Amino acid sequence: MGFRIEKDTMGEVKVPADKLWGAQTERSRNNFKIGASASMPLEIIYGFAYLKKAAAYTNCELGVLPIEKRDLIAAVCDEILAGKHDDQFPLVIWQTGSGTQSNMNANEVIANRAQQLAGKVIGEGEKVIQPNDDVNKSQSSNDTFPTGMHIAVYKKVVEVTIPGVKQLRNTLKKKSEAFKNVVKIGRTHLMDATPLTLGQELSGYVAQLDHGLKALENTLPHLSELALGGTAVGTGLNTPKGYSKRVAEYIAQFTGLPFVTAPNKFEALAAHDAIVETHGALKQLAVSLNKIANDVRMMASGPRSGIGEIIIPANEPGSSIMPGKVNPTQCEALTMVCAQVIGNDVAISVGGLQGHYELNVFKPVMAANAIQSAQLIGDACASFDEHCAVGIEPNHEVIKKLLNNSLMLVTALNTKIGYYKAAEIANTAHANGTTLKEEAINLGYVTAEDYDAWVKPEDMLGGLK
Amino acid sequence: MGFRIEKDTMGEVKVPADKLWGAQTERSRNNFKIGASASMPLEIIYGFAYLKKAAAYTNCELGVLPIEKRDLIAAVCDEILAGKHDDQFPLVIWQTGSGTQSNMNANEVIANRAQQLAGKVIGEGEKVIQPNDDVNKSQSSNDTFPTGMHIAVYKKVVEVTIPGVKQLRNTLKKKSEAFKNVVKIGRTHLMDATPLTLGQELSGYVAQLDHGLKALENTLPHLSELALGGTAVGTGLNTPKGYSKRVAEYIAQFTGLPFVTAPNKFEALAAHDAIVETHGALKQLAVSLNKIANDVRMMASGPRSGIGEIIIPANEPGSSIMPGKVNPTQCEALTMVCAQVIGNDVAISVGGLQGHYELNVFKPVMAANAIQSAQLIGDACASFDEHCAVGIEPNHEVIKKLLNNSLMLVTALNTKIGYYKAAEIANTAHANGTTLKEEAINLGYVTAEDYDAWVKPEDMLGGLK
Amino acid sequence: MGFRIEKDTMGEVKVPADKLWGAQTERSRNNFKIGASASMPLEIIYGFAYLKKAAAYTNCELGVLPIEKRDLIAAVCDEILAGKHDDQFPLVIWQTGSGTQSNMNANEVIANRAQQLAGKVIGEGEKVIQPNDDVNKSQSSNDTFPTGMHIAVYKKVVEVTIPGVKQLRNTLKKKSEAFKNVVKIGRTHLMDATPLTLGQELSGYVAQLDHGLKALENTLPHLSELALGGTAVGTGLNTPKGYSKRVAEYIAQFTGLPFVTAPNKFEALAAHDAIVETHGALKQLAVSLNKIANDVRMMASGPRSGIGEIIIPANEPGSSIMPGKVNPTQCEALTMVCAQVIGNDVAISVGGLQGHYELNVFKPVMAANAIQSAQLIGDACASFDEHCAVGIEPNHEVIKKLLNNSLMLVTALNTKIGYYKAAEIANTAHANGTTLKEEAINLGYVTAEDYDAWVKPEDMLGGLK
Amino acid sequence: MGFRIEKDTMGEVKVPADKLWGAQTERSRNNFKIGASASMPLEIIYGFAYLKKAAAYTNCELGVLPIEKRDLIAAVCDEILAGKHDDQFPLVIWQTGSGTQSNMNANEVIANRAQQLAGKVIGEGEKVIQPNDDVNKSQSSNDTFPTGMHIAVYKKVVEVTIPGVKQLRNTLKKKSEAFKNVVKIGRTHLMDATPLTLGQELSGYVAQLDHGLKALENTLPHLSELALGGTAVGTGLNTPKGYSKRVAEYIAQFTGLPFVTAPNKFEALAAHDAIVETHGALKQLAVSLNKIANDVRMMASGPRSGIGEIIIPANEPGSSIMPGKVNPTQCEALTMVCAQVIGNDVAISVGGLQGHYELNVFKPVMAANAIQSAQLIGDACASFDEHCAVGIEPNHEVIKKLLNNSLMLVTALNTKIGYYKAAEIANTAHANGTTLKEEAINLGYVTAEDYDAWVKPEDMLGGLK
Repeated sequence: MGFRIEKDTMGEVKVPADKLWGAQTERSRNNFKIGASASMPLEIIYGFAYLKKAAAYTNCELGVLPIEKRDLIAAVCDEILAGKHDDQFPLVIWQTGSGTQSNMNANEVIANRAQQLAGKVIGEGEKVIQPNDDVNKSQSSNDTFPTGMHIAVYKKVVEVTIPGVKQLRNTLKKKSEAFKNVVKIGRTHLMDATPLTLGQELSGYVAQLDHGLKALENTLPHLSELALGGTAVGTGLNTPKGYSKRVAEYIAQFTGLPFVTAPNKFEALAAHDAIVETHGALKQLAVSLNKIANDVRMMASGPRSGIGEIIIPANEPGSSIMPGKVNPTQCEALTMVCAQVIGNDVAISVGGLQGHYELNVFKPVMAANAIQSAQLIGDACASFDEHCAVGIEPNHEVIKKLLNNSLMLVTALNTKIGYYKAAEIANTAHANGTTLKEEAINLGYVTAEDYDAWVKPEDMLGGLK
Repeated sequence: MGFRIEKDTMGEVKVPADKLWGAQTERSRNNFKIGASASMPLEIIYGFAYLKKAAAYTNCELGVLPIEKRDLIAAVCDEILAGKHDDQFPLVIWQTGSGTQSNMNANEVIANRAQQLAGKVIGEGEKVIQPNDDVNKSQSSNDTFPTGMHIAVYKKVVEVTIPGVKQLRNTLKKKSEAFKNVVKIGRTHLMDATPLTLGQELSGYVAQLDHGLKALENTLPHLSELALGGTAVGTGLNTPKGYSKRVAEYIAQFTGLPFVTAPNKFEALAAHDAIVETHGALKQLAVSLNKIANDVRMMASGPRSGIGEIIIPANEPGSSIMPGKVNPTQCEALTMVCAQVIGNDVAISVGGLQGHYELNVFKPVMAANAIQSAQLIGDACASFDEHCAVGIEPNHEVIKKLLNNSLMLVTALNTKIGYYKAAEIANTAHANGTTLKEEAINLGYVTAEDYDAWVKPEDMLGGLK
Repeated sequence: MGFRIEKDTMGEVKVPADKLWGAQTERSRNNFKIGASASMPLEIIYGFAYLKKAAAYTNCELGVLPIEKRDLIAAVCDEILAGKHDDQFPLVIWQTGSGTQSNMNANEVIANRAQQLAGKVIGEGEKVIQPNDDVNKSQSSNDTFPTGMHIAVYKKVVEVTIPGVKQLRNTLKKKSEAFKNVVKIGRTHLMDATPLTLGQELSGYVAQLDHGLKALENTLPHLSELALGGTAVGTGLNTPKGYSKRVAEYIAQFTGLPFVTAPNKFEALAAHDAIVETHGALKQLAVSLNKIANDVRMMASGPRSGIGEIIIPANEPGSSIMPGKVNPTQCEALTMVCAQVIGNDVAISVGGLQGHYELNVFKPVMAANAIQSAQLIGDACASFDEHCAVGIEPNHEVIKKLLNNSLMLVTALNTKIGYYKAAEIANTAHANGTTLKEEAINLGYVTAEDYDAWVKPEDMLGGLK
Repeated sequence: MGFRIEKDTMGEVKVPADKLWGAQTERSRNNFKIGASASMPLEIIYGFAYLKKAAAYTNCELGVLPIEKRDLIAAVCDEILAGKHDDQFPLVIWQTGSGTQSNMNANEVIANRAQQLAGKVIGEGEKVIQPNDDVNKSQSSNDTFPTGMHIAVYKKVVEVTIPGVKQLRNTLKKKSEAFKNVVKIGRTHLMDATPLTLGQELSGYVAQLDHGLKALENTLPHLSELALGGTAVGTGLNTPKGYSKRVAEYIAQFTGLPFVTAPNKFEALAAHDAIVETHGALKQLAVSLNKIANDVRMMASGPRSGIGEIIIPANEPGSSIMPGKVNPTQCEALTMVCAQVIGNDVAISVGGLQGHYELNVFKPVMAANAIQSAQLIGDACASFDEHCAVGIEPNHEVIKKLLNNSLMLVTALNTKIGYYKAAEIANTAHANGTTLKEEAINLGYVTAEDYDAWVKPEDMLGGLK
């Protein structure tokens, strides 16, 4: 396969003839052979497509770009968004920390593809569209990359994370209502405690996810602020008057999401606290989901020698050696995601804290981690929901047995005979392997009638008066 | 010094005669010799004092505690809040994960001190106030400890963190305005870039802190939810009707803070996502502050062989060996705080994700880390403000020299002659060690008059049109 | 209480008359009101005492300090090490990142106390010993502080961490042998699996701790390297010939530990990778211990409605509301320690990665976290050992019942009838709530005799042939 | 494209006709739609190929597998290792936490491909090789997956990480020697300090990497321990006598790496502390590399308004808007890698600490993070070396100017006139904007001759006597 010659301000570069990218993309390919190729998330590329189109529209509207150029640029951006050029973005996360080369990758692909759309041949004659002077007009990598990453993360959060979490939340809510009368033993410190209903237990998970969703939504206004218009250092050098506000409006229009121009562009280039903030909420969800998944697998443990209070779907053979084994695999996938997200949070902090002067140069690693976390949490919640949560059912027989065994039903006697006598009853029953009722009577603290009247699990559920 | 005998449901324990605590506190002292003694934060003890008093008032109001007992309990709580019994709380963070023993420490101290206030002798005769049946009435460690930790963290955030951050934010805001006309070189990738004003640069920090404060405030509603009323497993067993709402109102009244009863008590006991959430915002502030402090010390570096664009106060001799050395010590203290807070965030996540069933048993470690972070950020911001930020002044001479040296002023020519010719000018000047103007003219791209008209740093500040 | 006037190169400072410290300590007290006072760990102060004495001996031996001064300095250092001046070190972690002010605190206290030992009055007449020129001779904060922190962390690791971990390891080893014939059900994915002995299970914990101890010991050579002799930037400016090697020998002699002079002083000042390395091993131990503690509390859960295979000591009443409740509190304290250590590891990384040029200025925060982790792990292991591990006993009745229930005994049939038929037996028994044997015979795959001969838990323990 | 029917113990599954995988792989594909497809690292698949072949050889040698089956299995494994079946492994990291389905993916692909190699058609007639009974013979997912991950991580560390780090280390070593006489200003706290040579400065980086390599090598023995032979719970159920030792020998032979059988299989299944340990060393390297890269970019900052003491290669145009800009992009790629690795370390800890009973079910996430970190550090070091470090050159003119400006040369006078007078000289020169020499003479502390004799940067380099 042949090559063609592309040029940039440093000179000539040989580029594979069948590729749309140009000199700077090719330099980056060769200079950053770090990890798997093309690791820069496509979501960011699509973010670039939105913003390049928006910039072209704004530049045109403000009189600095001819309408023919605008339309060519926009046409390529639409192709990119349709997934037609996914293989034209070969760069990695581990490049320049401003993402300059991915910005140039976008500029070069758009310019070269526009050449084709204009009926010309790439590399022949004057470029119809210049990568820097046209596609990148009124822009810098320093404001496009953070704009692209805000678009990418915002979209992922609202399109994948929130729907996934809500789907799981709604299932748990339904289950919580369905099981509102299933009285079971409570456990604190992993030890037998006073009773509650399975519905109440699940309602705690719902409350966790509701709080997590609220926390995540609280971060969206900051994330909706776009750096575009700040150009090189935040001052907006080389942008026409009115540009930053208008370009954000176009992005909002093209994406259908409520993006606005960042009130302070210096912050928007030099710090990526919005990513830190949003990911903090993703990490909170990870912490919540780990707890929920742990509970589900502990309650489903067994089938014969565990807790076994609930039954979860058997989706696949669980063991390559132990025949008939079924495992809580969705819980495992979900908790592994949680571990990853908690780790990603630290990667993002380490990147976020090292901005210098007018620019933070950990943009790609911060964006990639945020996108991954948002995707994983959304997907894993949906998967956990569909293959596990929807199928959760109580094992009534086990629940009843474990409930009635419990010595902690004695707590109901506190308000009748005091904590100390109640403790004596429980301790004696524990030591003797007997029942609470037997010892309550033996010790002379309660009559059989009173015991039966006072110690009823179904009366110990509070209702949170 | 002698001992007296105290009893609990496990039997007798010898307690130092001059101490107010009882059997369970003493057991804990002996069973958990881990790290420094008395490491459980006093802020949590004070949280207990508020809630024990509130519980006594509520119990009394709802008819389950005589007014005499209420008043005795309240009197001791007031003494605790006045700092009179700080040395009566010897327990460590590294105890039972529900904080049961610190709850009992509070119960025991209140009961024994009440004995004294009632004119009796501790350990003689019937206890006037019972630790479990009276002080702990309508409560469990499982709802009191998280209530105490929410009170402690909330108070710390609003009394120390937010004021400290605001103080620094306000100084930076004033400086930003004061230096709004000080044009200086911008730097991206640590490399020379287009100009901005020192005021613009500082405005980015202000925006960071404003976002951080908003993020922190967003977490307060979750943190204002109190577990109290959930008792052992969240059902509210052994609480009188109306208790949970009323007790939160009393706590709100006593603290002057907008606490409410948690809508879902199961979440409030089994998960501490509110702590995770609030600390996430503290971590975000740490990330922001690290960036700000780094910038300040880099800009102040020198005095002769660094950047030296700003001057910061010299507060102390900087070196034990290098005479006359002055260092950016407040930046160092602040960034060390940031490192700690980022670490604390992980400790809190690791604790938060391991709740089991009805209880999370990482309460003390989560609370202690959150209190520490809230304190450190508030204090360090105030210290950084008073001993550094207020004294920041531009070094006009250096700023001017570095600005005029910069080859990146060439960027202003992009819109006149295009990116590629502008690059040629800059590259040639760099290679020859000459000025932009010389090379612009030599290359024939710009006349001297045009150069002077077009390349003016003071016209490159955008104003973010 | 009165004040006296102390001076440093910046001028006069009022110092409390009854304190031994001088001007720079007092400046630091006032300039860094961040968090609790005197938070700088005493272990580091003692590290300073060792090194100041060693420096005095070396300086004297190499002819740059009179023997009278040496002896005065050494005498004060011995007093410090005897704990006589603990209240003379009021500074905080959150000071200058080189720990300069704690170095000066040591210099000042030694100089002033030497004044007293020399029969003079502090603040009157010429100082017998100068803080900078005598006590700090041939030193800089930049090499003394890292030396002090290596001494402190090394001592803590060998005196607290390793003995604590070994104590627990030895108990688990003994238990592992004692329970080598207690056949129980294994669990994978929290689900019933093939059997093993309780001894085998515990042997895994022993192997974890053995690996952890080995990993920790592997880090000690790096930690034994001392920066002293590097002075300000690593070149050893102002040190006499032969100083660095000799001073490390003295420190080794005084501490009884194998300290050596760092082969590369530039690394020893500018990076604290030795702390990162040692703490990495502490974190590994935290990861291991969390697993062990989790297993113990899950196996001990109940007493009636959990797993209940082992019994652990009941050390204290477990609940303020649930009478007779006993909890795995030592597991909780230990896992909280693990959470803290894992968080501390991140704080140390964040500090470690931000060294600049010739100096890392996150020394105090790195040292304080490492000392805390080393202390907590050692203490928590000892506590867990004494109050929990030593008392672990199998509950034979429960173990037997849970073992014999298990459907996973079917795995023994794999090599006889193949995985697929074995799976059919297990699945059928699970579906029907019957026993493996019943279904094995019903399905016609195995005779009763063969079943009894083939499916014996005690033959399924491998012995790891 | 058509489907064929595959079966497992749960029933029939439709599988794409052109794929080699079977029922369980297909179930997993459908049940775990989490993140990008095929995210399970190929390195682990290759690890499976090594171990499946080794198991076949061992099983054959020990008489439990016919030689024809051995050879068929081995032939497919060799094809996999030759990269011929990379597209047959579609599963994700986020599956069952034991990696059971990737083990079955390997088993199924091997069995089906063997069918082809045996001249049969997949899905027709009896399987020549059974996935569970033949390919998986004497194995369980629980011991194969950790074996595969140890092979994968070990190989990556010795083949990518260590060579990459050594390559950079060797370049820095050469540069350190080349620049051993380039005297420059030292900097502590980012402030001017006493001089050292550029060679000395770089020698610190060499020492950091040497320590990091040693730390990494220290972890390899633990990582060389293979779980294989433990089967389901560590007991080695269903393995022939002598199996575990022999299978490790085969793996060592096939990989050419010193693998051994784990002395304790319970640890090897239930904990992955070896991964935690090795990754701890990778994290240490990340901490070191971040420091080194930061220094390089700070020293190279400019070109005209920064520090500018060294020149690094210009590899690509640095800005899409600022013409002629060149940035330290390799430093940025490297530090982004460091941020990722530090985050990955936390993900691994969170996974590692949550093992339960006989199995840790965070295997895939732990392995994937370790492989990624090992790859990224190796690649990024090589890239940084080739495109940056090899080209580092001193800018002698700048170095000389900054050195001679420095007020910290006054430190040389400490031993002549004492710290306090030296400080007075420096402070006065700083205040007056004069030179040290002028003020030294003005203040009457030093003659011009003495000054010239005493204050020579080239005499202040110590040589670390």
